[in-house]
Amino acid sequence: MTLLLLGPPERGQVWGQVFEEAGEAMVFGEDAVDDPAAIVHLACWNPPDDLGRYPNLKTVISTGAGVDQMPPLPEGVALVRTLAPSVDEMVRDWVLMASLMLYRDMPRYLAQAAEGEWLAHPPQRASAGRVGILGLGRIGRAVGEVMASLGFEVAGWSRSGAPVPGIEVYGQDELEPFLARTDLLICLLPLTGQTRGLLSASLFGMLPRGAALIHAGRGAQLDMEAMRAALDDGHLRAAMLDVTEPEPLPQDHWAWRDPRVIVTPHIGGQTDAEEGAGHALAVIRASREGHDLPGLVDQNNGY
Amino acid sequence: MTLLLLGPPERGQVWGQVFEEAGEAMVFGEDAVDDPAAIVHLACWNPPDDLGRYPNLKTVISTGAGVDQMPPLPEGVALVRTLAPSVDEMVRDWVLMASLMLYRDMPRYLAQAAEGEWLAHPPQRASAGRVGILGLGRIGRAVGEVMASLGFEVAGWSRSGAPVPGIEVYGQDELEPFLARTDLLICLLPLTGQTRGLLSASLFGMLPRGAALIHAGRGAQLDMEAMRAALDDGHLRAAMLDVTEPEPLPQDHWAWRDPRVIVTPHIGGQTDAEEGAGHALAVIRASREGHDLPGLVDQNNGY
Repeated sequence: MTLLLLGPPERGQVWGQVFEEAGEAMVFGEDAVDDPAAIVHLACWNPPDDLGRYPNLKTVISTGAGVDQMPPLPEGVALVRTLAPSVDEMVRDWVLMASLMLYRDMPRYLAQAAEGEWLAHPPQRASAGRVGILGLGRIGRAVGEVMASLGFEVAGWSRSGAPVPGIEVYGQDELEPFLARTDLLICLLPLTGQTRGLLSASLFGMLPRGAALIHAGRGAQLDMEAMRAALDDGHLRAAMLDVTEPEPLPQDHWAWRDPRVIVTPHIGGQTDAEEGAGHALAVIRASREGHDLPGLVDQNNGY
Repeated sequence: MTLLLLGPPERGQVWGQVFEEAGEAMVFGEDAVDDPAAIVHLACWNPPDDLGRYPNLKTVISTGAGVDQMPPLPEGVALVRTLAPSVDEMVRDWVLMASLMLYRDMPRYLAQAAEGEWLAHPPQRASAGRVGILGLGRIGRAVGEVMASLGFEVAGWSRSGAPVPGIEVYGQDELEPFLARTDLLICLLPLTGQTRGLLSASLFGMLPRGAALIHAGRGAQLDMEAMRAALDDGHLRAAMLDVTEPEPLPQDHWAWRDPRVIVTPHIGGQTDAEEGAGHALAVIRASREGHDLPGLVDQNNGY
């Protein structure tokens, strides 16, 4: 019942200590594996190519919030993603920061500041406070709750269309009316076959002129050239991106130099190693006792 | 019972309409005054030099949130500051945005972005979430409430030291322990004889190393050169300023070019003209009926 952890050495150190204190077996790195048959759980971001090496593998734990990087797993192997409350809060805070920055015209004021120009513009019309959240998972709901408490009008779009208190929810087939009433569009969707390339020219065309985009989903959901055209034709006035395709965004990419776009290097959520290790222990125990695995992913849906 | 309004013509237009609908008398601009004895209320940011011209003046209404720009008024003239809920919310949102930007290291990431550099740094230690608010008026309390709900540890410093739910309050004589526990210092104080120059070398010296400053009070409270020295010696790691001395900040000022400092052109709160006119009507009615004036300022305290 040993867990194999792959990842940076700092994470290995923290996990090693947490596992030792808990009396659970763990090895760090494939080189440290003496007996592949002893490995029952694997925690990693990218799994090794040959998972067949571990005949008794039962669980793969993604050490990040997403699982879109995971290949199809062998039959019978469960996929789990880390549950770390502090990551959810970090992403929520980044999205809240980005939303306020776009609502209050920071790209424009930062560009002016670079020229030493002191010039206040009339504040946004009140209707610019209509927030629309693509994806109403834990983070989307948390963002919606805070923004509604600040007085923004919050709507969300989700596959299920299930009601969320305080948020006007649009279902799968209601993307168009959802976008038509949205001035600040926030993408928090997981990357799946359905969401790849979703942030496209046709989507931007359904937003009211002068809307703003906040992207904290996955880079492959956004067509950067379509975004640039939407900025040029006025459908979008500004964007903040924490995810890009590829990552890192190349140094000579136009988005770094466009004053209407602010890029941060995927800092929205970074998993705290101790929380990640704690979640892995909970998975091991649940697996041993036959309970539901915390963070279990439906491998057909991709989230 | 006429109100005289001084200010930009757009404001004059909005107020004129609101007053006409309410059936109250108003003139816009001193040139439009036929009978100075008819002027009972004056609404302005900077009053004219010769207030003695208006023998029946009873009230001066400051059209901004502050009154520090007001000269001493003639005996018996009441000073009122505008009460506009949307201004409070605007300042709250600017402060929240600035706090999140400094908490999440945006000055550093913006400087990197200018070079096209994709490089994530370890997130702030959790203790960097200790927010300290100088001034617990309406805006300070609103900021504290939101930040506490996000999980920050919030303390405040106020002259009265009166308790505020959810905020650890330090009184007049407890500035030193208040600063010693503060990583994100937010100034929301009114400008008075006591607060002029308060953000000084000695104050910065009482903060833990690596603290950050958010300034939305008044420019004259901050010693910019002392701030620069504190940034250089590491007591401060970054600052966001919405107020400066003087305003506008001159184009060649070092603060525009310092990557550790972000300056916005006093955009925290801009009064909505309709709300301002509504407040002025409420003042006129209260004055006529002998009730307490909404927004009355204690001219000895200065707020």
